[in-house]
Amino acid sequence: MDRLHELNRPQQIINKMLEKDAFSNWLKLDVEDIKEGYCVCACTVRDEMLNGFGIAHGGITYSLGDTTLAFAANSYGKQSFSIETSISHLHKVNEGDRLIASAIEIHRGKKTGVYHVNIHNQNKELVAVFKGTVYISKIPW
Amino acid sequence: MDRLHELNRPQQIINKMLEKDAFSNWLKLDVEDIKEGYCVCACTVRDEMLNGFGIAHGGITYSLGDTTLAFAANSYGKQSFSIETSISHLHKVNEGDRLIASAIEIHRGKKTGVYHVNIHNQNKELVAVFKGTVYISKIPW
Amino acid sequence: MDRLHELNRPQQIINKMLEKDAFSNWLKLDVEDIKEGYCVCACTVRDEMLNGFGIAHGGITYSLGDTTLAFAANSYGKQSFSIETSISHLHKVNEGDRLIASAIEIHRGKKTGVYHVNIHNQNKELVAVFKGTVYISKIPW
Amino acid sequence: MDRLHELNRPQQIINKMLEKDAFSNWLKLDVEDIKEGYCVCACTVRDEMLNGFGIAHGGITYSLGDTTLAFAANSYGKQSFSIETSISHLHKVNEGDRLIASAIEIHRGKKTGVYHVNIHNQNKELVAVFKGTVYISKIPW
Repeated sequence: MDRLHELNRPQQIINKMLEKDAFSNWLKLDVEDIKEGYCVCACTVRDEMLNGFGIAHGGITYSLGDTTLAFAANSYGKQSFSIETSISHLHKVNEGDRLIASAIEIHRGKKTGVYHVNIHNQNKELVAVFKGTVYISKIPW
Repeated sequence: MDRLHELNRPQQIINKMLEKDAFSNWLKLDVEDIKEGYCVCACTVRDEMLNGFGIAHGGITYSLGDTTLAFAANSYGKQSFSIETSISHLHKVNEGDRLIASAIEIHRGKKTGVYHVNIHNQNKELVAVFKGTVYISKIPW
Repeated sequence: MDRLHELNRPQQIINKMLEKDAFSNWLKLDVEDIKEGYCVCACTVRDEMLNGFGIAHGGITYSLGDTTLAFAANSYGKQSFSIETSISHLHKVNEGDRLIASAIEIHRGKKTGVYHVNIHNQNKELVAVFKGTVYISKIPW
Repeated sequence: MDRLHELNRPQQIINKMLEKDAFSNWLKLDVEDIKEGYCVCACTVRDEMLNGFGIAHGGITYSLGDTTLAFAANSYGKQSFSIETSISHLHKVNEGDRLIASAIEIHRGKKTGVYHVNIHNQNKELVAVFKGTVYISKIPW
């Protein structure tokens, strides 16, 4: 039996997205949970992800948040693109930290959606809050 | 004659920051211009920077913007940290595109500053607008 | 016995702020709950608050969110000022609607704080999400 | 000759919007310039617009910015609705100050647009920067 057929639809879509997502693979991003409008992803901070202050570059936390947003928003089967995103950096992220991002759907209309992504470290400290607005196209996955 | 003494103060600070900034180096980020409150940086999109749609991951554009913001804000010699940032993705970014980010100072108070970063491609198309709010510490570079 | 002495510290501060806050009084804003880092305020949409589409002007929802943020952030007794705020408008707000805004503290550092304010209508529909970053001064209330 | 026919299309649309916009009229908002994708509006801060610090409530500056955004975005003749907006408050606004908001179009796609609104006072000091993302419907004005 084909393993692909055991996966539900959101899992199939996200597998397809992640397979081709070279940068999320560079992040060694793991999808920990996925369902319609919801996604949890995680990655571990490596030395090549640090900035001039010796802590994780803000772009790493953002990138994890952005992929998690994309997966939550695309999980329904319509291609969706982030149009506006914001992130507040709240707590230092160090090399070796495990970042866990949880995207929840705040709103899903016909054309646009809004998602909050909370990003915690392995000690359950909130390191960043991310908000994303997506445009929902009619193009199917 | 020591080359370091030929550099002005903002250039010295940014060199020091960039030298240790592993992720900006992974981006192969070039500093094209730097003075107090102003910075231009650029990088070229490689295949490992693409997402599941085959275009540049939003995190790449964000990361370029975030480093450019950091350099503009730190150029005065006081360590500054971004606390809130937002980015609007306006135009697809493809492999091979050259992204040029220009940070300008909108406001600089005693404790906080606000910067706009416009990100264009090699065809002078605006691909993203980024806004960053920084906290200005008393810690010298 | 003076009623003021029965009030706890956050209530005293917010009463002092609201008393002088002419615009929040124009909104006929009611404080429904207040404690350190947390506040709930509400107001009812009147015809003079509508925009050219015949629905509540985005500035009304924003203003309610901004006051609720200010009260939550100032409740500890140090004057705090919003430096960056964003709002996503999710659902139409009509004349006669009762808007209830709940501010929760996401982060409170020494100098800055971040708050989420969710704004619902009387039917518990989420009409807007607001995020605010504040600068915390040393000036006491 | 009918004066309406002397007005160009953006002026006609904005007149129609402003006529019904009760809250912008409460602000005594003046449209100083309007063309496709561009608008300048102004208003003067009255005592009933102040907050608990005795300065203009953040909601006043936001509201002026939001109307100016709406006019710039609707000027093409398709009804457009702001979905995400942010504002950075940079400088105190006092009673009697004249606020002038200038909206410029950063991007206009088929479905969404992005606008920057700079808000200055009568001394040409930048008091706030506002960014708005709008959804462009097919509904004509």
